[in-house]
Amino acid sequence: MSKKLKIVTIGGGSSYTPELMEGFIDRADKLDIKELWLVDIEDGREKLEIVGAMAQRMVKAAGLDWEVKLTLDRREALKDADFVTTQFRVGLLDARVRDERIPGKYGLIGQETNGAGGIFKAFRTIPVILDIIKDMEELAPNAWLINFTNPAGMVTEAAIKVGGWKRTIGLCNVPVGSTKQNHEAMGYDEHDDKMFMKYAGLNHFHWHRVWDVDGTEVTDKIIDQLYHPESEFAKNKLKEVKNINPINYNYEQVKDLGILPCGYHRYYYITRDMLEENLENYKNHTTRAETVKQTEAELFELYKDPNLDYKPEQLTKRGGTHYSEAACELIASIHNDSRTVMVVSTENNGTITDLPYDCAVEVSSVITSHGAEPFNWGSFPPAARGPLQMMKAMEETVIEAAVTGDYNKALHAFNINPLITSGTYTKPMLDEMLVANKNYLPQFAEKIAELEANGVVYKPE
Amino acid sequence: MSKKLKIVTIGGGSSYTPELMEGFIDRADKLDIKELWLVDIEDGREKLEIVGAMAQRMVKAAGLDWEVKLTLDRREALKDADFVTTQFRVGLLDARVRDERIPGKYGLIGQETNGAGGIFKAFRTIPVILDIIKDMEELAPNAWLINFTNPAGMVTEAAIKVGGWKRTIGLCNVPVGSTKQNHEAMGYDEHDDKMFMKYAGLNHFHWHRVWDVDGTEVTDKIIDQLYHPESEFAKNKLKEVKNINPINYNYEQVKDLGILPCGYHRYYYITRDMLEENLENYKNHTTRAETVKQTEAELFELYKDPNLDYKPEQLTKRGGTHYSEAACELIASIHNDSRTVMVVSTENNGTITDLPYDCAVEVSSVITSHGAEPFNWGSFPPAARGPLQMMKAMEETVIEAAVTGDYNKALHAFNINPLITSGTYTKPMLDEMLVANKNYLPQFAEKIAELEANGVVYKPE
Amino acid sequence: MSKKLKIVTIGGGSSYTPELMEGFIDRADKLDIKELWLVDIEDGREKLEIVGAMAQRMVKAAGLDWEVKLTLDRREALKDADFVTTQFRVGLLDARVRDERIPGKYGLIGQETNGAGGIFKAFRTIPVILDIIKDMEELAPNAWLINFTNPAGMVTEAAIKVGGWKRTIGLCNVPVGSTKQNHEAMGYDEHDDKMFMKYAGLNHFHWHRVWDVDGTEVTDKIIDQLYHPESEFAKNKLKEVKNINPINYNYEQVKDLGILPCGYHRYYYITRDMLEENLENYKNHTTRAETVKQTEAELFELYKDPNLDYKPEQLTKRGGTHYSEAACELIASIHNDSRTVMVVSTENNGTITDLPYDCAVEVSSVITSHGAEPFNWGSFPPAARGPLQMMKAMEETVIEAAVTGDYNKALHAFNINPLITSGTYTKPMLDEMLVANKNYLPQFAEKIAELEANGVVYKPE
Amino acid sequence: MSKKLKIVTIGGGSSYTPELMEGFIDRADKLDIKELWLVDIEDGREKLEIVGAMAQRMVKAAGLDWEVKLTLDRREALKDADFVTTQFRVGLLDARVRDERIPGKYGLIGQETNGAGGIFKAFRTIPVILDIIKDMEELAPNAWLINFTNPAGMVTEAAIKVGGWKRTIGLCNVPVGSTKQNHEAMGYDEHDDKMFMKYAGLNHFHWHRVWDVDGTEVTDKIIDQLYHPESEFAKNKLKEVKNINPINYNYEQVKDLGILPCGYHRYYYITRDMLEENLENYKNHTTRAETVKQTEAELFELYKDPNLDYKPEQLTKRGGTHYSEAACELIASIHNDSRTVMVVSTENNGTITDLPYDCAVEVSSVITSHGAEPFNWGSFPPAARGPLQMMKAMEETVIEAAVTGDYNKALHAFNINPLITSGTYTKPMLDEMLVANKNYLPQFAEKIAELEANGVVYKPE
Repeated sequence: MSKKLKIVTIGGGSSYTPELMEGFIDRADKLDIKELWLVDIEDGREKLEIVGAMAQRMVKAAGLDWEVKLTLDRREALKDADFVTTQFRVGLLDARVRDERIPGKYGLIGQETNGAGGIFKAFRTIPVILDIIKDMEELAPNAWLINFTNPAGMVTEAAIKVGGWKRTIGLCNVPVGSTKQNHEAMGYDEHDDKMFMKYAGLNHFHWHRVWDVDGTEVTDKIIDQLYHPESEFAKNKLKEVKNINPINYNYEQVKDLGILPCGYHRYYYITRDMLEENLENYKNHTTRAETVKQTEAELFELYKDPNLDYKPEQLTKRGGTHYSEAACELIASIHNDSRTVMVVSTENNGTITDLPYDCAVEVSSVITSHGAEPFNWGSFPPAARGPLQMMKAMEETVIEAAVTGDYNKALHAFNINPLITSGTYTKPMLDEMLVANKNYLPQFAEKIAELEANGVVYKPE
Repeated sequence: MSKKLKIVTIGGGSSYTPELMEGFIDRADKLDIKELWLVDIEDGREKLEIVGAMAQRMVKAAGLDWEVKLTLDRREALKDADFVTTQFRVGLLDARVRDERIPGKYGLIGQETNGAGGIFKAFRTIPVILDIIKDMEELAPNAWLINFTNPAGMVTEAAIKVGGWKRTIGLCNVPVGSTKQNHEAMGYDEHDDKMFMKYAGLNHFHWHRVWDVDGTEVTDKIIDQLYHPESEFAKNKLKEVKNINPINYNYEQVKDLGILPCGYHRYYYITRDMLEENLENYKNHTTRAETVKQTEAELFELYKDPNLDYKPEQLTKRGGTHYSEAACELIASIHNDSRTVMVVSTENNGTITDLPYDCAVEVSSVITSHGAEPFNWGSFPPAARGPLQMMKAMEETVIEAAVTGDYNKALHAFNINPLITSGTYTKPMLDEMLVANKNYLPQFAEKIAELEANGVVYKPE
Repeated sequence: MSKKLKIVTIGGGSSYTPELMEGFIDRADKLDIKELWLVDIEDGREKLEIVGAMAQRMVKAAGLDWEVKLTLDRREALKDADFVTTQFRVGLLDARVRDERIPGKYGLIGQETNGAGGIFKAFRTIPVILDIIKDMEELAPNAWLINFTNPAGMVTEAAIKVGGWKRTIGLCNVPVGSTKQNHEAMGYDEHDDKMFMKYAGLNHFHWHRVWDVDGTEVTDKIIDQLYHPESEFAKNKLKEVKNINPINYNYEQVKDLGILPCGYHRYYYITRDMLEENLENYKNHTTRAETVKQTEAELFELYKDPNLDYKPEQLTKRGGTHYSEAACELIASIHNDSRTVMVVSTENNGTITDLPYDCAVEVSSVITSHGAEPFNWGSFPPAARGPLQMMKAMEETVIEAAVTGDYNKALHAFNINPLITSGTYTKPMLDEMLVANKNYLPQFAEKIAELEANGVVYKPE
Repeated sequence: MSKKLKIVTIGGGSSYTPELMEGFIDRADKLDIKELWLVDIEDGREKLEIVGAMAQRMVKAAGLDWEVKLTLDRREALKDADFVTTQFRVGLLDARVRDERIPGKYGLIGQETNGAGGIFKAFRTIPVILDIIKDMEELAPNAWLINFTNPAGMVTEAAIKVGGWKRTIGLCNVPVGSTKQNHEAMGYDEHDDKMFMKYAGLNHFHWHRVWDVDGTEVTDKIIDQLYHPESEFAKNKLKEVKNINPINYNYEQVKDLGILPCGYHRYYYITRDMLEENLENYKNHTTRAETVKQTEAELFELYKDPNLDYKPEQLTKRGGTHYSEAACELIASIHNDSRTVMVVSTENNGTITDLPYDCAVEVSSVITSHGAEPFNWGSFPPAARGPLQMMKAMEETVIEAAVTGDYNKALHAFNINPLITSGTYTKPMLDEMLVANKNYLPQFAEKIAELEANGVVYKPE
């Protein structure tokens, strides 16, 4: 803990920044910070200035001497950084609106990490993350890249496998939430961290097992608490869930599974129910992106208040609760070699034997000063293994299309994605999405020009 | 070729039997047959007598001294058999009608090897095949089991892995047809067998590569012939395809794939188009099962003609063309150690490294007197590997549910099947299908009784 | 920590027992012990009484109320046990003398865990451990089996894979020693446990990597400290090593290896040097077994002293230093769910992807109340992978021969063991060793009778 | 068979050339040859001229219009070649003498494909084969590289994996011989090729299974014929074996193995016996290399005879019998797409699942116009699997040292080679061998200079 830290946040103008600041401030005793840099692009200047000023107020109110710097010059910020966190959104929320509404038009689930929306978010984000890595190679060769930008699993895999940045760790708030929920389901306080949990899978597609403090496996008991149709716990608790729909799983299916699914498995295990809800939101213009846009506008109004120097309650509605907890905890654990157990996206290297050796997986790991050391998981039973292998193969195809700009591969990815019903209609949908995203997809520029020449246009409804 | 052969056909009352007979007769010089036994059950007695009489006429007309025996006593037939072929259909065509129409009611593709229909066909068939194996262990311990009963991949895997009958080989007519088609696409006669083809995958879910006689790989050239939107060959030929819809693939997707898909991949690669067509057939009562029922009725009328002693032209409309070619060729190849290259379902043993070692795969193999020796395939690129692994995992789950009668596993299989959109509605659909099939599912008897007690009924439309 | 513990030690009459007692006493605050049972067989009665009385004095001197019980009735002891530790030696030290001297006669390394000696120790021990497990199934179904009986890797694998006892953990003192040594080599105190080490391989055949507290990997630096011919550290420290010879490795080979070998790798990496030393000891009757016999006799003389109530200094000469540290620490960690990192033999399950899924490996693990959770390792570079795979395959062959009593397999194991030069002479050597061990090899009884009938005799020199 | 072939033989001055010529002449109806180029280096000019003239006489005597060209200009020869065969020996037979005698001095088996000798042959040969490939990329991009240069497995792997030349096939005469022997053992004529054999493993380290024409596996029966101590067949036949010693295996070990070993397994399965014999030859200056040198001198005397226009009987004593059969058959099979089954070294790609996907293996394959299509093998039982994995890992280490000139890796390879007893003495032995081979090891030039500066010299005895 000798060296004073320089931490850089790409996408610093995000509405999440106050939560991140709170996380750092809460760990001030474990993080000897010198500088916190908030970086954004020209389009995000206004938000950066608002939230950056607030971040400075928060640090001041906490009585800390950290320098909070705001900049549009990424390279200046990256110079000699120790940790780089990423929470940027290429194309801002308007891109997310398109990710959700264009698939909706074609009768599909639109979602920023799943389906066609998630694929396009990967297409926009992966080239940028690879650019950041190029800068880091030159300017911050020892820095850790802590990625929360979605789709976090694919972005992390691209950073490690394509970018070659081994010091990348991907993070997500989903396991933090379910760990709390599992403790509650077993009668512990949600702030307890007593039971041993082992997670494995992919980002937004993982499962876990739970053992009570006396060593008894309680996975099955928690399945009953959370998913039995008569469970009082389920009835009371599920309605609180934010980001994802509280529609419940087929209890019998989860019993057969024998391990605990994550919240995002709803998209795959009860697709038709989720689709109905998504199409309803599509019709009513209440998609997640549209809702979040409204929330964000309100948040930034709040952030403008020169007297606000703490994270406002309203931010918890935003959906990203626990992100800061995860990110700041991870940084503190690496910095202090504190051997905390966390669920992170990292290189597989055989942790899950059903998946390629060199892919990224999201697994329970011990966090050390040299990075994440995952617990071995091994293999899954067939009914979990198949969907897992399918998802990873789809992710690999998306990453390759994102890196190469190969149109045929993009169409192939569309037609094997479990949330995109395959068909001949996927080609016009892909074409429309490419054109709609033309400002953010340099790798597909030539194809997009050709499509436009052939009259393909983006038709928002 | 010393010993005179005893060949037994379970499901001998099938309308396919004349084709099988023709296949044997065409190979009379390679098959030193003593007895051909056609076995059926009481419900199939009438058909067995009609088609059996016709089989006897065909043998006689060919001037052969083979004894064609008809029986309802399976054990009598199996005694000392050398080859046992299976072409039975548990529940007859009415079961197939239900397999196709119940899913249709829930807005799904109903198909006898895919989706909910295929799962139920596996549930009905696997216990019977395991029973046959028990008889064979006792009565015909050295016999080869040649299975064409669908879903052929799952039935073969159950026979080998659960039944422990290593001398099982599964067969399908699809590769025979595509081999012919590929030759035509390259300007050869369809009866040529010059090019080298290597198939790998699962039954109704395989891909292949093709090399011309000079060693040049022509896979990509054939892709263009078959799937390019402007291909004259495709326009002319696709309309001839029988069993499966001639709707064409997304050309760009197949180009990225780089290997040739099989006809059944349409269900997975252009699902929405196939679904639309299926639902149209559902509405018009022109599902495959309903059409086949009509065709079969006509065929049996023909078969009754005491002067008919050759395979009538109308049988080719039935859809199973080339089955006899495949089955009789396989039997002759084993009998003569003739080292023919055929595409068969057999134990994986690492042939496809992406799949479990002990599962069944459908792969190009050299047929020897000790069985199939598959050509090594290795691994697939991600975009093919993922769907393949997904299918096999689903098959494993179905087989396990079929063997154990585990309801939770059956529901799990439903919800991971790529042609069944998952959802909470799958439980009532599964329940209705269980009740509708109650006469053929002893392994689920207890659960079905419980469902009926709870008021679940089968409601045909 | 609610329940009072019953701990059972099979082979309680061992000279190591005082060290084990010291380990328990040192952890009295973490182990709420009710009863400690020391079990031995009739042939070990005298030693059990001597060392058992001393154990009782030690507990009393520590002011603890634990009951130390001595018995020859294993089943009485096992009833409701929580932990069962095994430190027995079938055939006592005389068997070890034969394990070392017969191979010596044939010009080979004789060693109780390596070569022909290790194979015979496995042959004698595995049937007994499987017997103990049968008792445990009936009498102590929830107990943990903590095995230190050598060859610990093979015995652990047999317990888990053949005996089906999943709650088995194998232990060895070698990693404890090298962890200390690595700390010293980096300038830390040997009692520090600051650096992160990751071990993987098999018992007495593992490697490890080391990271300093700041996250820097120091494996290569430690290689230089320990194995560079000019290293002062090496010159001073290696001479202190007990059990195994301080002859140093080929420095260049270890540099290429890039990971730290264990002490026992000397048998494989500098075989000829080790062989020369072993043959010298053979000639001078100073083999390890003969030396230990002398030490043990002295120890038991000391133990008889009714005033001795603490572990005597002389025991550290015995060679098993740190065993108690490892065993007691493991028991306390399981009991308290304390998440200690330890190196243990456990099921592979893909931890080392180069080895069979279901074998036993020795790997760094987090100890929880439900057992060991290994850190994933993945694969080794070829030059380590090959010898590792060779050893495991040899172990599997030995285990199978030990369980079945298959003579051909035993001879096969002999001829692929890396420390037994293969040849036609191995058959007479195997025969002589079988006859020499006839009292302890019920599984080979028939073969031994046949050998004796053919005049094979054991000829000690 | 449209195009007239240009076939190039690197190392055309070899004493084997007449056998190769005979092979081509015997297949004149299947090989439409235009030019046969015999290439050698300046040091081999005399031998090239002698044997080249004889080759021309042989072609003429056969009444063929093939042009037999002799050249020292490899690039001229390679231009537009269709097939390139390699039978060169870097350093000529004197290098082989050193490969066998230096290890002998250190008490080891010296052998040109095994142990230290084989490693040095790889070190000398691999850089040359990679050079040839560079020329081929430029001059003959579609040519097949047919390698018989030893160590054939490692050279083939280097060509495919390092050189990237996918159209490489390695060949060996050992399987040809054992196929004949197995037919004889079963009472067939040695020229029959009726039984089905499946080989798998590495060059000089493979096993096989055999099925009789009726499909019965006869592997075990042949084991008894060849290896049972009382077998009359074994007594009569083993004495005829050329290249390798007729000392017999441990029968019981082979019975446990359950598959047929190759002749070279003697070095690994009865090492001590082989070592004794080798050391006897070393002492008497009758090592294989020394014997072959004498034979070769005699052969070249014969070849000088301007009337000799056929392969002289004496060549069969040379040891390489069947090489031409294998090589010419392979070339004819590729040229004619004749689907012959042959045993060749080719890319693994999962054929043997126990070995790395990208390594070279020697396996039964169907030879097509696009190359070798191996039969799938799968995995071996542990007692074969371990030694196989060990050998491949050693080969990989040797190849990497051969390509990089990494001294540490070379020493590592020495110490894990199953025929080199590891030890501290291996370093001086490696050093002496490096210095002895200094003219042929450009990749180790710097290290050799350093060794010489430190006084290391080659001391022949």
